[in-house]
Amino acid sequence: MKITKDLYQGSLALLTDFYQLTMAYAYWKSGKAEQEAIFNLFFRKHPFHGGFTIAAGLAYVIDFCNNFYFHEDDLEYLSGMTNSDGSVVFEEAFIKYLKKMRFSCDLEAVEEGTVIFPHTPMVKVKGPLIQCQLLETALLNIINFQTLIATKSARVSLAAKGDSVLEFGLRRAQGIDGALAASRASYIGGCAATSNVMAGKLFGIPVSGTHAHSWIMSFDSEIDAFHAYADAFPGKCIFLVDTYDTETGIKHAIEVGKVLRTKGKEMLGVRIDSGDLAYFSNIARQMLDEAGFPDAKVVASNDLDEHIISSLKFQEASIDTWGVGTKLVTAYDQPALGAVYKLAALKSDAGLWEPKVKVSQQSIKINVPGDHQVKRFLKHGKAMADMLYLKDSDIEKSKITIIDPTDPTKRKKLNVEDLEEVNLLKQIFLGGKQVYISPSIKEIKENTKTGLSYFDKAHKRLINPHIYPVGLEEQLYKLRTDLVFKMKNYEHE
Amino acid sequence: MKITKDLYQGSLALLTDFYQLTMAYAYWKSGKAEQEAIFNLFFRKHPFHGGFTIAAGLAYVIDFCNNFYFHEDDLEYLSGMTNSDGSVVFEEAFIKYLKKMRFSCDLEAVEEGTVIFPHTPMVKVKGPLIQCQLLETALLNIINFQTLIATKSARVSLAAKGDSVLEFGLRRAQGIDGALAASRASYIGGCAATSNVMAGKLFGIPVSGTHAHSWIMSFDSEIDAFHAYADAFPGKCIFLVDTYDTETGIKHAIEVGKVLRTKGKEMLGVRIDSGDLAYFSNIARQMLDEAGFPDAKVVASNDLDEHIISSLKFQEASIDTWGVGTKLVTAYDQPALGAVYKLAALKSDAGLWEPKVKVSQQSIKINVPGDHQVKRFLKHGKAMADMLYLKDSDIEKSKITIIDPTDPTKRKKLNVEDLEEVNLLKQIFLGGKQVYISPSIKEIKENTKTGLSYFDKAHKRLINPHIYPVGLEEQLYKLRTDLVFKMKNYEHE
Repeated sequence: MKITKDLYQGSLALLTDFYQLTMAYAYWKSGKAEQEAIFNLFFRKHPFHGGFTIAAGLAYVIDFCNNFYFHEDDLEYLSGMTNSDGSVVFEEAFIKYLKKMRFSCDLEAVEEGTVIFPHTPMVKVKGPLIQCQLLETALLNIINFQTLIATKSARVSLAAKGDSVLEFGLRRAQGIDGALAASRASYIGGCAATSNVMAGKLFGIPVSGTHAHSWIMSFDSEIDAFHAYADAFPGKCIFLVDTYDTETGIKHAIEVGKVLRTKGKEMLGVRIDSGDLAYFSNIARQMLDEAGFPDAKVVASNDLDEHIISSLKFQEASIDTWGVGTKLVTAYDQPALGAVYKLAALKSDAGLWEPKVKVSQQSIKINVPGDHQVKRFLKHGKAMADMLYLKDSDIEKSKITIIDPTDPTKRKKLNVEDLEEVNLLKQIFLGGKQVYISPSIKEIKENTKTGLSYFDKAHKRLINPHIYPVGLEEQLYKLRTDLVFKMKNYEHE
Repeated sequence: MKITKDLYQGSLALLTDFYQLTMAYAYWKSGKAEQEAIFNLFFRKHPFHGGFTIAAGLAYVIDFCNNFYFHEDDLEYLSGMTNSDGSVVFEEAFIKYLKKMRFSCDLEAVEEGTVIFPHTPMVKVKGPLIQCQLLETALLNIINFQTLIATKSARVSLAAKGDSVLEFGLRRAQGIDGALAASRASYIGGCAATSNVMAGKLFGIPVSGTHAHSWIMSFDSEIDAFHAYADAFPGKCIFLVDTYDTETGIKHAIEVGKVLRTKGKEMLGVRIDSGDLAYFSNIARQMLDEAGFPDAKVVASNDLDEHIISSLKFQEASIDTWGVGTKLVTAYDQPALGAVYKLAALKSDAGLWEPKVKVSQQSIKINVPGDHQVKRFLKHGKAMADMLYLKDSDIEKSKITIIDPTDPTKRKKLNVEDLEEVNLLKQIFLGGKQVYISPSIKEIKENTKTGLSYFDKAHKRLINPHIYPVGLEEQLYKLRTDLVFKMKNYEHE
């Protein structure tokens, strides 16, 4: 088995649920494969009981779409699939059809780093039904995870109130590229650096790290270990002080820091990775200050997340830099974002777009039909509301009302004539050709920061946030309601 | 950015925390790079508050070690790293040293599918300190995640009491190979098949799946959609019945099932993906039976895990096959296993192995020093206890006592003369050469099943399991205690 090196040498088209392929085959058999469709990718609830979400993963989606084809190996695998009676699952003509298939869809998406809200499309795919369907699983896999982690990272960074946050999660991340994508998304969300060297190399993210307990244990004493480390890295010493006894460790760090100073170098600080971080960080601060090292930083790590950081801040812990690992890269308290990908419209044989809705007993699960754009309205640099509307509708700007997609009694009138407005969905592919270039990762990170600054801090509160208004424009709301009634009557008659 | 295709074309040596590289450099500077060391990879607590854990990931570890080298690109990246004053982080001579480095360690590990317990090594690496250190992060990343998912899958399979469990998690998994590794580990743990076609192709796992709500929505009516699906797959129809109204959906499935029967084909069953699964599965069973389809299966899915499956079983839901996704592949209720990798011994300049221990204020965090083997004792096919002992110790078989690693008052005397015994740690690499061949995935899956059958069902209970006895052999216990006292005195004097 060649897992690491050769895994992705073919295409990624088989990175899909089998039912996408059986449906693809059945669409093809039914003559519906090339019928034009619109699918929307969206989520229904912010993760972590929060008030906002940060979009991420689009660069991966672009790469996936640009490399979307069935490789000879993939086709051979599919050709070889048999039913229990020994007959083949897929006819040869269908395999030939797949062989010729190339990505030819239009794709719109919100840019990475954009602050986004439930029920509004993050990605919209318009193209042949069969392609839309075959893209579903990979798009969800990519966007669900990276958006989740970018959001977690933004929350952790908000809790740290401007302090540096370092992402240390590789050893507990779910999978190899799970770790890489998490490092990238963490940086987008607000982290200053990663410990993951491969992420540093691939994505151009700053990397950081010093030494572990094993470094100390490999020497006869802690002080010898610190001296040896200072010899190797005189200009970048952060000493891990809790291998044996934290206070003794800080003493040893100070001792070596003084020797470094005689050589014209300054120790950067100490790191505490266990025990009571509030207590020991204050001890460390006091000892460092008294010894003449007021600029030495205290780095803390050990199962941190936004809530523990908030609590440590509240307790006035003397922590300058936060190392966050497992709880960030696995999104520990909610390890999956439930984004879905739903059929929103289908072009009839007569060439007309027919909006589509999936009825459900839970109103939150009813999707929004049609071909949309999302508009964000701002006033003096403050985001006021997001509106989901039908692209081809005629909206009178003087009297806009938006209606909450799950509670029709929640409505908001907007006089948008004195508001700035931004369209959130950007064109990424047209007829299968990429028309959008992803910004650099640094620019995306800046987008997140700027984007978040447009929102009142009440929306960014970690617990019980104030709900930001997002709604369907009236004509879209009416279309949806009519369709749901029609579907329900149809099924019940 | 080429994420998908070219990501892993180089080596994976940079898949590590930066501090492993700074330590590697400092070991090299201190003349300690080639000092022989032993590191153990182990966990301290079963995941999910359970009573057992299933080892997985070794095949990936083998592949990683066989491909462990620094590629030209990697070295160029490291050479280019600079400090804030513009000086290079790593001297050129060190880069040359890394260029020549090849994996040369001995490696022992428990086989995939083995039932394992806290504090006993899952992987043991013996070799040059610098290599042991550079392997740490990747080994933890691989073993932590795959072991976590294999264990979750085993728990879900136990809850399903012999019913088929299908893994459907790709769309919510963390990363692309996070999903692939999860599908593999789920199969090892007990799942019968995956929806992930790429996992099917790469690992030879059976794949399964039928159609989604979008299939139904793309037709003018549900019954048309079912007929069209039956035309494409007459021999393998499982109809998803909850797109609009579940009872109507079942009626439509039966109608199409009757048409299929006139053509000599049998519908396989129906799938319910929302609503009250206990209620609707019983309705479905009754309707199918009354319509003359007693062999048609009821497949259920929707946020299932071992606890919900147990509850549905307890309620006598009529579910034959369980589709499990997000909660399985992300290990939703505990998305990380906290396995660690600790220095256990170091060879002195005089060529003697010196056991090493990391002292901690929490006794659960004190590692077990020395070079070990783990023995499992069985009586008439039932596992009685696991013993961790020093490889070179002389143990009198007639009077063995094992001592709990965290509670010295918990001891167990074993008369092992009438017990069978198995060594859990197998030799995988010797001097960097692979001496072990991974079994096929089907064999590994069988190992899990057989291995679990050795344990009393009380240890496999999902909640509040009976604790299986695992302990340190007396001489090892004494060695550890003496070392801890020595370290504490040393630090406190």
